[in-house]
Amino acid sequence: MKEYTDEYLEHIQQIIAANDTEKAREELASLHPADIAELYQKLDLEEAEYLFSLLDEETAADVLMELDEDDRLKLISDMPAEEIAKQIDHLDTDDAVDLIQQLDEEERDEILSHIDDVEQAGDIIDLLKYDEDTAGGLMGKEMIVVNENWSMPECIRQMRVQAEEMDEIYYVYVVDNDNKLRGTLPLKMMLTHPSVSKIKHVMETDPVSVKVDTPIDEVALDFEKYDLVAMPVVDSIGRLLGQITVDDVMDQVREASERDYQLAAGISSDVDTDDSILAQTKARIPWLLIGIASGLLASVILSTFEVQLQAVTTLALFIPIIGGTGGNVGVQASAIVVQGLANGSLDIKHFATQLGKELLIGLLNATVISSVVFIYNLITLPGEFAVTMSVATSLFIVVIIATLLGTVVPLTLEKLKINPALATGPFIQISNDILGLIIYVHISTMFLRLFS
Amino acid sequence: MKEYTDEYLEHIQQIIAANDTEKAREELASLHPADIAELYQKLDLEEAEYLFSLLDEETAADVLMELDEDDRLKLISDMPAEEIAKQIDHLDTDDAVDLIQQLDEEERDEILSHIDDVEQAGDIIDLLKYDEDTAGGLMGKEMIVVNENWSMPECIRQMRVQAEEMDEIYYVYVVDNDNKLRGTLPLKMMLTHPSVSKIKHVMETDPVSVKVDTPIDEVALDFEKYDLVAMPVVDSIGRLLGQITVDDVMDQVREASERDYQLAAGISSDVDTDDSILAQTKARIPWLLIGIASGLLASVILSTFEVQLQAVTTLALFIPIIGGTGGNVGVQASAIVVQGLANGSLDIKHFATQLGKELLIGLLNATVISSVVFIYNLITLPGEFAVTMSVATSLFIVVIIATLLGTVVPLTLEKLKINPALATGPFIQISNDILGLIIYVHISTMFLRLFS
Repeated sequence: MKEYTDEYLEHIQQIIAANDTEKAREELASLHPADIAELYQKLDLEEAEYLFSLLDEETAADVLMELDEDDRLKLISDMPAEEIAKQIDHLDTDDAVDLIQQLDEEERDEILSHIDDVEQAGDIIDLLKYDEDTAGGLMGKEMIVVNENWSMPECIRQMRVQAEEMDEIYYVYVVDNDNKLRGTLPLKMMLTHPSVSKIKHVMETDPVSVKVDTPIDEVALDFEKYDLVAMPVVDSIGRLLGQITVDDVMDQVREASERDYQLAAGISSDVDTDDSILAQTKARIPWLLIGIASGLLASVILSTFEVQLQAVTTLALFIPIIGGTGGNVGVQASAIVVQGLANGSLDIKHFATQLGKELLIGLLNATVISSVVFIYNLITLPGEFAVTMSVATSLFIVVIIATLLGTVVPLTLEKLKINPALATGPFIQISNDILGLIIYVHISTMFLRLFS
Repeated sequence: MKEYTDEYLEHIQQIIAANDTEKAREELASLHPADIAELYQKLDLEEAEYLFSLLDEETAADVLMELDEDDRLKLISDMPAEEIAKQIDHLDTDDAVDLIQQLDEEERDEILSHIDDVEQAGDIIDLLKYDEDTAGGLMGKEMIVVNENWSMPECIRQMRVQAEEMDEIYYVYVVDNDNKLRGTLPLKMMLTHPSVSKIKHVMETDPVSVKVDTPIDEVALDFEKYDLVAMPVVDSIGRLLGQITVDDVMDQVREASERDYQLAAGISSDVDTDDSILAQTKARIPWLLIGIASGLLASVILSTFEVQLQAVTTLALFIPIIGGTGGNVGVQASAIVVQGLANGSLDIKHFATQLGKELLIGLLNATVISSVVFIYNLITLPGEFAVTMSVATSLFIVVIIATLLGTVVPLTLEKLKINPALATGPFIQISNDILGLIIYVHISTMFLRLFS
């Protein structure tokens, strides 16, 4: 990984300030587009635009795709439509669609009308109609396709033509006369069987493929399961539509796990350490206010309990342990469910099994926890058996209920097609806090009556 | 993704019960090794072993590598060393090392002595010396390597020999006479420049490569940044040692994010919904007990406050809101830091910048939160200005301190080379709970004195 030192940045900034285009071009030539993109993000917008203007069209397009979405939008917002169209002409269709999707309808149409290559424009328009969160939204049109009835020399001739337009060859797809996907041609077959008469004799049949409307999280799981670098996308009758490559899937896996993690931490929109203070506060304040509202609700619940608290102040000492334990237990249970759903090891069909299992885990945890606290309080609070019993019993019930809630809530969200990660973290923490207090208030009121 | 229905499983189990080897072989032939592995995990060990014995050696080896680590260990623990050696002979070296690393030293040596292919055994022994968490621990020895001075026809001849042993060709690496990595040969060059005299004239120079001792999280970031499907691994003077493929990196990304997520949820070892109830309880109970210990500590802190609580019971009502808010704020701040460190957007060198930024976010949040609670209490608790002031002031201080702690703790852990994800979740939650109470106790004692 390239690390930019402060000295190097200063060196670049001096070149820009001196308007030394030759030296700037020299520096850029030695860098990978991804490194140029990283450099841009460390410079002012004007400096970045200056460097960008020095790049040849193809590198410029590559750099554009390596930028963060926000920075990309900033850079292209100053460009005339003709120039954006030129960049798009150099992009793979899946990247072109990602870029064009960031713009509003009017800009889109203008840019599309400026793309010289009609085939490219047509492919982009085709791809734009697919839902972003499906295989269709992730695929590109660039791929090498051969007919099963061709001979190897004919195949190689055709591949030579098709390869001109591609950065990288992953798989060679074999189709029949109806364009239905029949197999793949491992590249090594070109080496080991250079003169076979029909490639269907040497192709690998039954290729792993994905339907165009498959959700992307399933696509990602398939990539991991079958160790693929690319996957063909087909329509409902098996005709080859496009190809998804592993780099796009990796981005998806990373983004999905970051989103889940942030949701679990109570951060409501996708923010990063680079974002502005205001953006970060806006992303955090909603859950904090929900937490505050529930804290105030807790005070209302406890106010119904003021008489008992007045009589036996010791009861107040255990308010934190009740809510905290419920929260911890709930977060653990829900994290296990969310993760199982995300990596495919837990199926929504096994709702009942999972609940039963968690119930047993909850019972075990509850027994250990309430025994520990019971013994501690028995020793440290010799005169207050009612309090000791109230705390231990409440903890037992809280742990079991919190475990069950932590399991049921994410599973229910999954059934309702809402991201179950929303259920971990603050949501389960807060609801278990409140629930714990209600249980504690009732149990202690009961035991106080019983023992006095 | 293959979904096994209960009917299909029953169908397979009947075939096994009837000992119908022919039909069983037929069913297996139609399945991808990854699907066979999934099927195994749904069957009893004996049923799985029966099916496994019917596979040809190469498929058996592939299936073995697709299994979960635990299931794999179960299956091979019943195999004689000779048979395990045969399986290993069919595996890629990186997979072979993963498998052999699960065994103890004695078993390892016995198996290695049974491997017929001396080159394979030697490669495995070479790879075993690298740290599992570095590029060396992830790489395999299978790759296609050509000399920069060869002509294209000579290259293709050599590649044909080397390709025999490989499942898939990702890149062709070009080295000089000292085996130093000089470039890569895009496969399309074989098509477009079939007769060039020296491939160094058409190779791509400056290939992205990684040093053998690079930590794997950095390797993963490079794969994502440069959109690679494979990356060459070199020693300190640039000699080519091996290749890392994207499938192994994807597994790493997924595992690392799952580990972080579990740590943040207070689950101490890597468990899944499939794991036994005892294993899951064992993974969860440590943090719960730490939570309990801190809950009891909270009761001790509050007991120093009993006189005030006795006098002004209303103070007890706000115990939950103080701890809860501190916890929520701390988890948010630490999650942002942990994620920034994981995806490379935050650098440990910017410790002070990040802290300053979080301080401002903390101030904003603290102002909003304490104002809301101040106004609410002013209205609902007209006679108790001391309580209103105590709660609002404590919240203000708690939010700022919790934000700072949430930032400092993970950054400090990162500096100490401990996984910063350990700091999110229960740790920060619990310490902020305790800290919040201490602040609340002191602030209210002060305000009670002031207003009475």
